[in-house]
Amino acid sequence: MSNGDIFLGEVIGTSILILFGAGVCAAVTLNHSKARGAGWVVIAFGWGFGVLAGAYTAAPLSGGHLNPAVTVGIAVDTGEWDKVWLYVLGQLTGAMLGAVLAYLVYFAQFRANADRDGAVPTLGVFSTIPEIRNPAANLVTEVIATVGLVLPVLAFGDNQGLGDSGNTLLIVSLLVVGIGLSLGGPTGYAINPARDLGPRLVHSVLPIPRKGTSDWGYAWIPVAGPLAGGALGGLIHHAAF
Amino acid sequence: MSNGDIFLGEVIGTSILILFGAGVCAAVTLNHSKARGAGWVVIAFGWGFGVLAGAYTAAPLSGGHLNPAVTVGIAVDTGEWDKVWLYVLGQLTGAMLGAVLAYLVYFAQFRANADRDGAVPTLGVFSTIPEIRNPAANLVTEVIATVGLVLPVLAFGDNQGLGDSGNTLLIVSLLVVGIGLSLGGPTGYAINPARDLGPRLVHSVLPIPRKGTSDWGYAWIPVAGPLAGGALGGLIHHAAF
Amino acid sequence: MSNGDIFLGEVIGTSILILFGAGVCAAVTLNHSKARGAGWVVIAFGWGFGVLAGAYTAAPLSGGHLNPAVTVGIAVDTGEWDKVWLYVLGQLTGAMLGAVLAYLVYFAQFRANADRDGAVPTLGVFSTIPEIRNPAANLVTEVIATVGLVLPVLAFGDNQGLGDSGNTLLIVSLLVVGIGLSLGGPTGYAINPARDLGPRLVHSVLPIPRKGTSDWGYAWIPVAGPLAGGALGGLIHHAAF
Amino acid sequence: MSNGDIFLGEVIGTSILILFGAGVCAAVTLNHSKARGAGWVVIAFGWGFGVLAGAYTAAPLSGGHLNPAVTVGIAVDTGEWDKVWLYVLGQLTGAMLGAVLAYLVYFAQFRANADRDGAVPTLGVFSTIPEIRNPAANLVTEVIATVGLVLPVLAFGDNQGLGDSGNTLLIVSLLVVGIGLSLGGPTGYAINPARDLGPRLVHSVLPIPRKGTSDWGYAWIPVAGPLAGGALGGLIHHAAF
Repeated sequence: MSNGDIFLGEVIGTSILILFGAGVCAAVTLNHSKARGAGWVVIAFGWGFGVLAGAYTAAPLSGGHLNPAVTVGIAVDTGEWDKVWLYVLGQLTGAMLGAVLAYLVYFAQFRANADRDGAVPTLGVFSTIPEIRNPAANLVTEVIATVGLVLPVLAFGDNQGLGDSGNTLLIVSLLVVGIGLSLGGPTGYAINPARDLGPRLVHSVLPIPRKGTSDWGYAWIPVAGPLAGGALGGLIHHAAF
Repeated sequence: MSNGDIFLGEVIGTSILILFGAGVCAAVTLNHSKARGAGWVVIAFGWGFGVLAGAYTAAPLSGGHLNPAVTVGIAVDTGEWDKVWLYVLGQLTGAMLGAVLAYLVYFAQFRANADRDGAVPTLGVFSTIPEIRNPAANLVTEVIATVGLVLPVLAFGDNQGLGDSGNTLLIVSLLVVGIGLSLGGPTGYAINPARDLGPRLVHSVLPIPRKGTSDWGYAWIPVAGPLAGGALGGLIHHAAF
Repeated sequence: MSNGDIFLGEVIGTSILILFGAGVCAAVTLNHSKARGAGWVVIAFGWGFGVLAGAYTAAPLSGGHLNPAVTVGIAVDTGEWDKVWLYVLGQLTGAMLGAVLAYLVYFAQFRANADRDGAVPTLGVFSTIPEIRNPAANLVTEVIATVGLVLPVLAFGDNQGLGDSGNTLLIVSLLVVGIGLSLGGPTGYAINPARDLGPRLVHSVLPIPRKGTSDWGYAWIPVAGPLAGGALGGLIHHAAF
Repeated sequence: MSNGDIFLGEVIGTSILILFGAGVCAAVTLNHSKARGAGWVVIAFGWGFGVLAGAYTAAPLSGGHLNPAVTVGIAVDTGEWDKVWLYVLGQLTGAMLGAVLAYLVYFAQFRANADRDGAVPTLGVFSTIPEIRNPAANLVTEVIATVGLVLPVLAFGDNQGLGDSGNTLLIVSLLVVGIGLSLGGPTGYAINPARDLGPRLVHSVLPIPRKGTSDWGYAWIPVAGPLAGGALGGLIHHAAF
């Protein structure tokens, strides 16, 4: 894969992932959305099928990592670090692009929110917010949830005889649904530094009326936790398989 | 594929798609339906599995596009335009047939609705209605959501080594579920001109008692938006892959 | 496939289907069930994954029809009628066995229901009940919904190049989920004569305390409708493909 | 497969299963969780996709049983008992590890629960609790539900021509979703002795504040019922296939 293909694939794939993911958060939380109040099952499947759409689109170009934690996990496992920066750059760029696209899809809803008495804060559409603010506990949650993502993803490489790759992408996307359902309760499962940091940057820059805080004090946890979890998953896989 | 097979495949496949899709909208919104009030997750999965049923049935005859935006996206990408009219004609015919079938399935419910005080408008079973009426914003929503459909669909062609085609149809249908969950909030995700225009024609012609408006003022948006999105998706794919 | 294998496969497979299907109806409707009130999405996925479990188990023995409407549709399409009686006999036997098993799984819930003031009728766990009792409309609903099942199932035979059979069983089961979500609203989607008649026989015979009516006046519709729909699906497939 | 690989695979795979499964129970039942009150569909899909994640990870090492009832069912069917102890040891170890991990993910939620007036009992996150306490009925429920799991799983071995193994793991996981939806109502579907006993041991040992009873009086049923169901499934499969 050429450097250009890797960058382009990660940009396109991650932008689709965040378009779907930020989109489903807007769909469920904003007023004047047909999916308003549709609940956690919709959030989890929306993100999971965003992984499916993004990874399938990106796969022929870059393999479709879409997540620095996955890229780091693979690098720790294989020892090949030279393209990590390129993947991460594409992922962060794509995440920002996807957040802008999701904002455009829900443009009228964001404006209507600002026009209401009692406009609700908008950060939750873009980035994760913990239910209980406890840095140590939040960090542990993100580390374990990311190991729960990266370890099966790395094991897929050991399952070459078990099915074709199209199947693998479907299974990975359902795995992400499962992580959302099961492990997303405390922090909203960033499990992907680009997924959280890129849209947070967009949120802080975009002129969204009455948007509320971008909560930069929390921003390091959904970056550090998933990176540590990705590395830990890579170490466990390297040792056990 | 012969012209007859293409037309027949698109008619049968799109009629199954709309039977399921208009059916699930009736199921969730009409009184005296066991699924009444079952929510957005049911809408999104009903449409997605309608794509699965229709596309799988049509695949051996026509390839199973079922959507002018997909047909146009492929034409823009490949430069082959000569059968586009035939696909679109079959899709529009099938969409009208499917809307009639869904009406027949829920015939007693439509009659009971008309017999009630406060009969509810029936257009929502057939065609899309925006939550906030804003032509520019609605158009942008439909364009972006359709790119989110067409770009992964075109990328499936690049994934020939990634899995068999049966798998691909399953993944496309889950992708449509995801678009519904994530991007359907503002406009109800037409993302398919035939899906919206065919049932709207049927709604305006069928003698449904107390049916309410067919809202022709909005009808151009779910045609123009998806067509533009399909073409844009084709352009992006042609340039990037 | 030997006659013994066909009979045994259909008995085991259909009993698993009805165990799951009657089970999920009990789960959602009976008191003292953890899934009480869990809604239509649970009903539809429960039945669909019951098809998956039953058909996958039965496939190596009998091909896993589990439904006289499917068996009749195949016979109309292929002209081979000689084993139809054997399939149907196995399906009806299996459906009765499955209904007994589901009753045993929810035994304590049925007893608790009878002990309450205001015991609820129990037929809905076993067989379908229309929301609006209108024989012509109910029949049309069952015919169209069954065509929506049988036509894609027959088309799977044309998709041999499209994927492996394991995939096909998964797609069929999701198709059944879709029919439930989309077309189940008016009558509860029997779409299978054995699924409705077998458990109704068991309901009328089993000594369930305060069980309420077995509603034999309606029983012909979920038999005749699906059989007509299966035959019609076979005719359409034979003509079009 | 070496003894070390079997033990390691079952430990890792079962720990992932229980991390997801106990996690989703915490997600839906504890306060300060984003998924609180999300309902039975979330529980069932969370457990099912936990099976997918755990089994896919474990498959290249141990085949991914993750359940003594499955291991016993295979042993009864094939007559090979010599590694059963090793599988079960790994499964129980992994189940305990997974329960600790799920506790860590929801650590802040458990602490907040203890700080409230009216702290809720916490056993339901770890182990199953019947809705109606009736040993005979509860045992029958667990036996039948486990046969409904083990019989299709054993039949997958007969379906070698029906699809690849990656597909099989996906189908097994959806089968587990189906069992949850359909047969989980009365007892919470242990259907796996390690899934219930391992987390119960952890619950009774971990210093969870105000954790409530570990309910050892019920603990034998979700061990004996699934083991009997696994053996019965093995016998039926051995006789019929």
